[in-house]
Amino acid sequence: MTDMDSVEAHRARVLAGIGPVEPAWLGLEAAEGAVLAAAAVATVPLPSFDNSSMDGYAVHASDVAPATDEAPVILPVADEIPAGDTRAVTVAPGTCARIMTGALLPAGADAVAPVEWTDGGTSQASFSQPAPKGNAIRRAGEDVAVGAVLLPEGTRLGPAQIALLAASGHGSVLARAAPRVAVLATGNELSEPGSPLVPGRIWESNSYMLAAAVRQAGGVATRHRAEDDPEVILARIEELSAQADLLITSGGVSMGGEHDVVKAALSGAGAATAEVTFRKVAMQPGMPQGFGLAGPDRTPVLTLPGNPVSALVSFWLFGRPAMDALQGLAPRPLPSVRAALTGRVTSPVGRRSYLRGVLAPDAATVTALTGQGSHQLGALARANALIVVPEDLTAMEAGEVADVLSLP
Amino acid sequence: MTDMDSVEAHRARVLAGIGPVEPAWLGLEAAEGAVLAAAAVATVPLPSFDNSSMDGYAVHASDVAPATDEAPVILPVADEIPAGDTRAVTVAPGTCARIMTGALLPAGADAVAPVEWTDGGTSQASFSQPAPKGNAIRRAGEDVAVGAVLLPEGTRLGPAQIALLAASGHGSVLARAAPRVAVLATGNELSEPGSPLVPGRIWESNSYMLAAAVRQAGGVATRHRAEDDPEVILARIEELSAQADLLITSGGVSMGGEHDVVKAALSGAGAATAEVTFRKVAMQPGMPQGFGLAGPDRTPVLTLPGNPVSALVSFWLFGRPAMDALQGLAPRPLPSVRAALTGRVTSPVGRRSYLRGVLAPDAATVTALTGQGSHQLGALARANALIVVPEDLTAMEAGEVADVLSLP
Repeated sequence: MTDMDSVEAHRARVLAGIGPVEPAWLGLEAAEGAVLAAAAVATVPLPSFDNSSMDGYAVHASDVAPATDEAPVILPVADEIPAGDTRAVTVAPGTCARIMTGALLPAGADAVAPVEWTDGGTSQASFSQPAPKGNAIRRAGEDVAVGAVLLPEGTRLGPAQIALLAASGHGSVLARAAPRVAVLATGNELSEPGSPLVPGRIWESNSYMLAAAVRQAGGVATRHRAEDDPEVILARIEELSAQADLLITSGGVSMGGEHDVVKAALSGAGAATAEVTFRKVAMQPGMPQGFGLAGPDRTPVLTLPGNPVSALVSFWLFGRPAMDALQGLAPRPLPSVRAALTGRVTSPVGRRSYLRGVLAPDAATVTALTGQGSHQLGALARANALIVVPEDLTAMEAGEVADVLSLP
Repeated sequence: MTDMDSVEAHRARVLAGIGPVEPAWLGLEAAEGAVLAAAAVATVPLPSFDNSSMDGYAVHASDVAPATDEAPVILPVADEIPAGDTRAVTVAPGTCARIMTGALLPAGADAVAPVEWTDGGTSQASFSQPAPKGNAIRRAGEDVAVGAVLLPEGTRLGPAQIALLAASGHGSVLARAAPRVAVLATGNELSEPGSPLVPGRIWESNSYMLAAAVRQAGGVATRHRAEDDPEVILARIEELSAQADLLITSGGVSMGGEHDVVKAALSGAGAATAEVTFRKVAMQPGMPQGFGLAGPDRTPVLTLPGNPVSALVSFWLFGRPAMDALQGLAPRPLPSVRAALTGRVTSPVGRRSYLRGVLAPDAATVTALTGQGSHQLGALARANALIVVPEDLTAMEAGEVADVLSLP
């Protein structure tokens, strides 16, 4: 099958054609899921001031050193310091100040006695045990020192990373945002779901499916549709290329004839700005594939086959890695396990099959579903895994162990 | 430690207080991530008509039965049927029709000969091998039969499920949408990230962090903040309860005194509509917890501690299950593995520790990070796992195998 590319070769072609998008300063909510384009550095220590880790009393440790249950030390309460209090309080020797968790440690004090070690008094407090020097004090910088790298370049920002940035005072960060992906479904046969149907036409599912898959992968998706006219399709692609970091088309890329409209649009005489390679890839489903750059901005365009199962499997294999690359990350493959087949599976000669299957909860066995046609969405919707049958095999038997990709 | 509830007891309290939200008819894009409130049933077969699975020629199989390389059968091409063509075409015996993938099979034809088996002619075509009856034909209903359950009640809708619904003509579905979660951070000490800071105050991170965690778990989050005033906080909670399926507060729930403003707001005399239980939970971080119902709509409210590490760990343990329950699903626990500790870890007596750690790529070993304080976001931001140290242990040694929760 020398006329086909391997899955790896096509993925390499896609990744070679995609560079990271320009970074932008993003507010903390916009930055969720974004990837840092430069290290975030601590401009202040974290915590930024010495503070109490408990509700209690700020004291001179030496004052309460002799305290016991039998002979408690009694100190006047000279002040009360709630969290958020910005006054410069000083605790004189022989006195104490009531202090709350997170509150600024007053000058003079070198320990906090938790309220549980006292009688909780408000005008005076009785201490029944010593509070060693430094007790219940969070020191400035003990979490992060000034100048330390909070998060290195290339960090994807989840809740904990957003929290660290916020707590360190960063209101915005230089990052590559979630990729904007425009999905364009082509085909004269397509009708809108919910509308009546006549024989010969089908309800359009690819734009909904691929947009959902893009969002599931952390991208921002828009849905579009075009009739089977190469000029219309090319115009639509050029228009969308200005609004998206990645274009994904579905349909119109078979190896047949004049009805391969996406191929015609992107390789015809009118397509001066397009440079797209169309190839057979040695896989099933999803043999006809294409990738290149199109439009004035030379936006990456991934042309997926129109059969819905082919389109979604292709998105998982090529589209998700492309989205990672747009954020400057090494592509994350789908999680892979090895599991024993519960029954015989077959595969066409020379092509790698990605059969829709159900991986058991213990991940020990995997069962291929009935209905493996490229148009058969029923099985796809029940699948949680893809069973990989290598190019050089035409069958695998029950009990054989296969590579299995977990679906997102 | 009889004065504390277990993590399981508190989680059970939360889940007992939460019922599924009312389902609504959602369009296919709004339905992404939603959960079906009723089975979706096929009202038409899928495919809805017999169609060609390849580009080729619709023929009477008997006409091409004698075809060989040496003695090809030649038939006039009487018509051409692209995908989307809705005409009622009939192929007479002794003729053929050019047909594209997905196009309606014409009456009379009982097989499709792929273009690869022919000379690809347009006025007449030469067939060099037989096309058996039924070849390359997708029969109506072979994916899904009329009346079949497309997706059962309780299905979470990802890309493949959305595709199946769309392809079956469902423009909308009865489903429970992604939960709407209002996050309310309390504390007079809080300043907005990006603004200048004075000693005694800290940059607010919890609302950003928890909103990001809610979105990561598939919810819709809004962020809010209130000063440390029980009346203000109660009014805010009652207002937000009308706009959200779940309220999450952070801060103001320690076991101490008058500064526990969330506790005061929800258990004071003014809180006629609130019924919230505040308890110590035998865990670290995150001992002070609360859950109940508040506001005119009796909206579930989860009151998390204010230390950011405590708040996020608590959200993972209690908030994510609550979100599943709002969609009518059995809560999905964080994925758990068993891994060997690379060093000694300690834990307070009687409390279950959730230490921030790094699980190795092979999931065989796990390393506790330096900086396990409840305020130490640095370690949290580097962690990919929580190491669980049971209540009855105060230490585990290097080489011992621990339960480890993978972080989302």
